[in-house]
Formats: sequence, structure tokens, C-alpha cells
Amino acid sequence: MRFLIVGGDAAGMSAASRAKRNIPGLDVTVFERTQDVSYSACGMPYNLQDPKRSMDDLVVRPAHVFREKQGIDVRLGHEVVRIDPQGHKVFVRDQGGEYEEGFDKLLIATGASPIIPNVEGIRQRGVFVLKSLGDGRRIKEFVLNNKSRAAVILGMGYIALEMAEAFRSLGLKVTMVKPRPKLLPWMNQTLSDVVLGELQGHGVELIFGEDLKGVEEDGRGLLLKFSSMEISCDLLLVAVGIRPNSELAKDAALELGPSDAISVNRQMQTSHPDVYAAGDCADAYHVVTGKKVWIPLALRANRSGYAVADHLSGKEVELQGVAGTAVFKVFELEVARTGLSLEEARREGFDPVEEVIESRSRAHAHPGASTIYCEMVADKRSGRILGCQMVGKEGCAHRINSVAVALHKNMTVEEYSQADLAYAPPFGPVWDPTLLVSNQLLRKL
Amino acid sequence: MRFLIVGGDAAGMSAASRAKRNIPGLDVTVFERTQDVSYSACGMPYNLQDPKRSMDDLVVRPAHVFREKQGIDVRLGHEVVRIDPQGHKVFVRDQGGEYEEGFDKLLIATGASPIIPNVEGIRQRGVFVLKSLGDGRRIKEFVLNNKSRAAVILGMGYIALEMAEAFRSLGLKVTMVKPRPKLLPWMNQTLSDVVLGELQGHGVELIFGEDLKGVEEDGRGLLLKFSSMEISCDLLLVAVGIRPNSELAKDAALELGPSDAISVNRQMQTSHPDVYAAGDCADAYHVVTGKKVWIPLALRANRSGYAVADHLSGKEVELQGVAGTAVFKVFELEVARTGLSLEEARREGFDPVEEVIESRSRAHAHPGASTIYCEMVADKRSGRILGCQMVGKEGCAHRINSVAVALHKNMTVEEYSQADLAYAPPFGPVWDPTLLVSNQLLRKL
Repeated sequence: MRFLIVGGDAAGMSAASRAKRNIPGLDVTVFERTQDVSYSACGMPYNLQDPKRSMDDLVVRPAHVFREKQGIDVRLGHEVVRIDPQGHKVFVRDQGGEYEEGFDKLLIATGASPIIPNVEGIRQRGVFVLKSLGDGRRIKEFVLNNKSRAAVILGMGYIALEMAEAFRSLGLKVTMVKPRPKLLPWMNQTLSDVVLGELQGHGVELIFGEDLKGVEEDGRGLLLKFSSMEISCDLLLVAVGIRPNSELAKDAALELGPSDAISVNRQMQTSHPDVYAAGDCADAYHVVTGKKVWIPLALRANRSGYAVADHLSGKEVELQGVAGTAVFKVFELEVARTGLSLEEARREGFDPVEEVIESRSRAHAHPGASTIYCEMVADKRSGRILGCQMVGKEGCAHRINSVAVALHKNMTVEEYSQADLAYAPPFGPVWDPTLLVSNQLLRKL
Repeated sequence: MRFLIVGGDAAGMSAASRAKRNIPGLDVTVFERTQDVSYSACGMPYNLQDPKRSMDDLVVRPAHVFREKQGIDVRLGHEVVRIDPQGHKVFVRDQGGEYEEGFDKLLIATGASPIIPNVEGIRQRGVFVLKSLGDGRRIKEFVLNNKSRAAVILGMGYIALEMAEAFRSLGLKVTMVKPRPKLLPWMNQTLSDVVLGELQGHGVELIFGEDLKGVEEDGRGLLLKFSSMEISCDLLLVAVGIRPNSELAKDAALELGPSDAISVNRQMQTSHPDVYAAGDCADAYHVVTGKKVWIPLALRANRSGYAVADHLSGKEVELQGVAGTAVFKVFELEVARTGLSLEEARREGFDPVEEVIESRSRAHAHPGASTIYCEMVADKRSGRILGCQMVGKEGCAHRINSVAVALHKNMTVEEYSQADLAYAPPFGPVWDPTLLVSNQLLRKL
């Protein structure tokens, strides 16, 4: 059996490794258009902060190890330009030209790409995105070699926020700009204000309501033209979001889902049963709504890669779906969420109520405590928890997981409020903040 | 209606406050035999480490506030010596003698007491237990005033371990002794060895297999006589365990449960419907086995106190029970558990299998990572998770909670392994250690 994989990052290489472990005789080929496979993309903002570390530290396993130790045919610099599900073949372009390869099973693991606003000068030197390891290398080299002093970040999502911290810790002036009026639109206002304060407290300038209209070179750097202002800087990072790389699937008439991600079932099969899709290019079921969503995150990419390998090896596979659990660090803050926000819950037809509490990260009178803000959303009709958000200097990153598990089991606020959670003075108050918020929220149900 | 409460710590004062909030006209009286109510007992080992802090910092709300702000009749130094459920009255002893009080509803919240081995000289000056705030004050005063240099701790449970850290940080030589051969008998050996190494690495001497036979004064301090050796020290802390203060209930012919804790239903009623019991003196249902257990912990005490107040106020109450979730700090380590150990699972009639993994506290190549050891126990017949244990320098205390929630919902290992948990490089690997161990454990099911 011949298993071809398009894309050699989290989903693709997880599938390749697991498939080879499941069926040692399997013929596995990975086509990767860049020169890197299997690296920790999420680690780039942290690597960037340390001039002494090479970006290559983030490579978990280099291509030659996959080839030599695992017998996987990894082809770097090979781009799949067309797939033919019915004919069971793909068309590949490399430096030498184009060739075709046949498959029994195919995995599309092409990931996602940064959205680039269509404005004049956006391809200028000094304008970056951060997605591939190559992007990371280029930014790091540029900042260090050019002794950059001022960065502008377009967008205020996870990556934008992590990069704001990275640039600040390298000593750059950082200005973040977005056209919309809210920092984190999905976040409860109280919590979002805490994040805002953290950014401002670390000298990050935030500008809302400005659209990028053009990028010019002004001799010493870049001149960015916005709706009603201009900013001079050394570099511009575009981090306004990503979109799934689903063109191959679309051109092959495979079904697409939300945000044009490739539609897959709980076995990660596309609308053609011999073609799988996994990772950031594929959609998923949401455990709260049961509906399709596109929430591209690293754990899902790895997990769905394994699921593909198991399914094509004849194992039973039935993926539950995603809860949209995420955490990120903003300077000293841990910012975490799972499930639906109040607005999302309303849009999904629930009758949502929300509660926000302030708690502490350590017990009464224990030194070093800081404030934890915790929000919980529940459905008034069923009493079910729909989502949770947390912000604080410590104790948020892992706390969100107990609510995530609750979402997987459709737990009610009442049930959750009775959970027997751990307590010791160095780690929290007797009532965990998620218990405290559920106790308060109960009164609104 | 007259509501009497015996014992003014976590369960008692939670019940008093909540009952008064539920029914402002309620006549609430609390009898507390010591001079303290409502303090963070768990905080004492940490308070002890700081000579500048008063032990009274741990008082969450002093008695006069309960009296003046909440209208609760708190009587310090009043000990209830007998209860008469049928006659609806209690007999109280204070400095002036004995008197009786009638009740409509009674709560026994007498907590637990340290077990004191019955050996010669155990009441000597310099021998301590740590349970009440008074105990904490006495130890702190003794250590600071006598410039103590060497402490022996009898026992190696939570409190013993926390106190080992407290004494070491005050500069004392610490020797821990127990008769049995294992540090934490309920813990997986690999994890227990990590805790052992941490203690030894911080200069704590551990002696196993020695029974205390007698305590003598030797002029400069204490001479402890064990089965086959003697130790000189300035002070001895007895921390070999606690037992429920259930004598009042026993004398009144109320039903007792495991470990002679007072048997209560899911509404916290004893075998007499007008008499409740809550906190460390009462038993509970275990969410994994459905059977009665005695696992005295702070969160349960608070929660069951509230439950009593709600039930006597006419609200519907149905407590789920405990999972035995606990965490404690041993020097730099976070040690956490929930549910059953392998041995406990075997004793309860399950067909348990176990897996232990080593993982990291931060992502691949993220600086500052340390090792996390995670063990999971599951039932081979049902595939259910039965318990989990974790040890590591960071990221264990709150991680255990997601497994605790899973226990409340009888989650299988397969279901848990699909949980959508949070990931970001500063906070863990892509696969949370609890997911990693569940993935591994699946292969044994």
C-alpha cells in the first residue's frame, strides 16, 4: 500500500510516523514544499527573544532522521500542485520540473497561511509574516542584523500578542494596530481589559480603528500609511489571521467546510474516502455545538495525524472533536479559554448567561498571590457549561483544562460546582476559581 | 428555628455563614472549644517558615466579625460534651461549668485530631502536633525562642512533609522517622522515589522501619528511643495521622462509617435527620467506587458546611462525593493525586492496569523545562480511569484537576485521551502529560 502525504509539519509527520509504526511495510512518502519538517512553530516567538539560540533548535526531528531511522521518503522542496482523487494520483513540482505519483491513500496536511492584506507595498523588504520556520529565521536575522528599533504589528491575535512580547524583550518599540475597536473580540470585557493593561504596562502601544492602506520605503525603514495616520518603523509584522490551505482540495472538488477548511468526518476522511485531511487545513466538530468549526490548533493537528494513520491501518477511529481550548502568554499573564464565549453561545442559539469573578492564585495569607479573573458561560435552558475564560499571572494555563474536560462530557454548572479539585495554599484558594465562578453562576440559572 | 453548631472551623463556620445568609432570622450558635474560629489550618506550615509573620495572619474572619456583622452567636472556649438527638439538646462546658441548649437542627463539625502514639514521655515539653492554630503558635514560639537546631518528625504524610520543608527553611536539621518501609505507600514507586530524592536533596534524613518507644528529657532537649536506635533533638513533631472526632456522635448512638467517621447521607444528615455532620469528622461517598470513605480535606469541609446550610434552609441538596483529589508541595516539587491508586483499585475489586510516563513541563526546546512524572490507573474491564498521580517541579497542581473532573463523569481512558486541552510552549508539551499517559495506557486496555 502506498500512502502519500502533502505537507510535513505536525499533522503530516505525525501521520507518517504512526502509519509506519502501525504497518512497517507501508510505503510512505511526504511532499514538503519548504526545507523544514516537524518543528515547533508555536515556539518561534520564544526562540526569537534569545539572540543566542538558533531557530533550528525548534526542529523536533530533521528530515534525514525520518528517512534513515523510520524509512519515510521525505521530499523537501517538493510542492504538490494538483491532486486527482479519482485517478489516485498527485502532481508534484520540484526544481527539476513536474512529475506524478500514484497513491492508495492520500493525506492533505497543507496547514494554513497568513492572510496578507492586499495593499500597495506589502511585499516590501521589512514586511514579515510568521508561519514557517523560514519566516522565523528571516525575522530573527532581520531584527538582529539591522539592529531594528521599532516594530509595528498588524493584528492582535495570539501570534501578534506573543510577538509583541518577543519584540519588546529584544528592546524594540512595539506598536500594534487593528481596524476593529476591541483587543480580543471573543473575550469578556473585564478580562480583555486586564490583557490590555498588561500590554500597555509593558510599553506596547495599541491603536484601534486604523486600516493599513499602503507600505512605503522611507530611506531608513518603512512608512506605513493607515486610514488617518502614518507610522514609521523598521519592520512590519502582518498577523491578522490565517486561512486554511485548501486550494488543492477545492480544485479536486472535495467538499469544503467552515472558513473554506477541508471538510472531514470523524475518521478524518474528506468527501473522497481515500483522501484524508488533517491539521490546520481541515475542519472539526465542536464538542459543545456538535457543528463543524475551523479552529486550527497544534494538539488537534497532531491528534488528527495519528487518527489518519490509525484509520488507514484498519483501526477503529472516532474523533470526538474540539472544545477550542487555548492558552497563550502575554508578558506576565496567562490567558486561557475553552468552549464558547457569550457572543458565540448566543449566535449558536443557546440562551447564555455569564459570570465573572476575581479570585486569588494562592490561599488566604499565602505570600506571592496574584489576581485570577475567571469567566464562565452556561446555557440557561439546560444548565450546561458552554465555555470558560481565565486571565492571571499564574494558575490559569492548566486550570482551563478541567473545564475543557467538563465540556467534553456536557457537564452542567451544578455538576461542575461539585467537582473535587485539588487544594493546597501555594497553589490556590480552597475553592478553585473555576469552582467559585460556577457557584456564582448557579444563582443565575 | 434554632441551629446549633459544634466546632467553628471550615465546615462549622461555612454552615453558620451560609445558613444566616439563607435565613437572616435564623438563630445560629457556634460552640468552639478553642479560642479560634475560621482560620486556614493548611497555611500553618508556610506561615511557620516566616518568623516575621504572626500565626494570626491565617485567621480568615475573627469571631467578633461573625458576631457583629453576621449576628452569629460564636462562643469560644465552649466545649460540647454530650448531645441528645432525641431530646434535641446539647450539653456544653465552659469555664463557669456546664449548661444545656436546645436545638431544632444540630451540626457536628468537630473535625479530626492527631493520633498520638501511646508511649512513655509523649506529653513531654518539646513534643508537638500540628492541628489547631494554637498548635501552630506553640511550635513557632518554641522554635524561635529556643533557637531549636534539630527536629524529628514522626510520620511522612502531607503535614509531615510540609513541616519538613518549614523546619529546613528555618535552618533546623530534620529527621523523619516512620515504622513502615515506604515513604508514600499509596504512591507509585517511580513517583515516590522522586519525592524521596527531593527530600534527601534538601538535607532531610529519612529513617524507615523504626517505632517510637519512648521520649525522655536529656538536659539539653529530647532523647527519642526507637526500636533499634536513639535520636537526640530539640523538638518532636508527631504527624502520624489523624482520626475523626466522632465521640459525641458515637456516645449519642449515631451511626459511624469508615475509620469511625460519622456516617452521613448525600444531604449530610447523620442517622438522626435533625443532626448533620460535616467536615473532617464525617464520611463521604467516593465518586469512583460509590462506597463510603473517610478522606478529610479542606474543600470537602467547606462544601459540606454549605450543603448543611442549604439543606436546612429547604433547598435541594445532593452531594456527589469526593474523588480524593489532593496536592501538596515538597520543597520544589508539586505532588498531586486524584482517585484510586493501583493497590486501592485492586482492593476495591477492579481489574486495574497502570502506566507511568515521563514528560516535560514546557514544550520542546522551551527554556526552563523540568520533568513531570504522571501515573494513571484504569479498569481493564470497563476502560474507566480510576486514578492519577503526578510529581514535578511545575504544572502538576492544577493538571490533576482535569482528571478529577473525568472521574466525576466516569470517563474512560479512550474518552480522556481525546480531550481538547490547552497548549502553549511556556506551559507544557503539545500533548499534556495526562493525555500522554492516557495514550500509553490505552495500549494496555
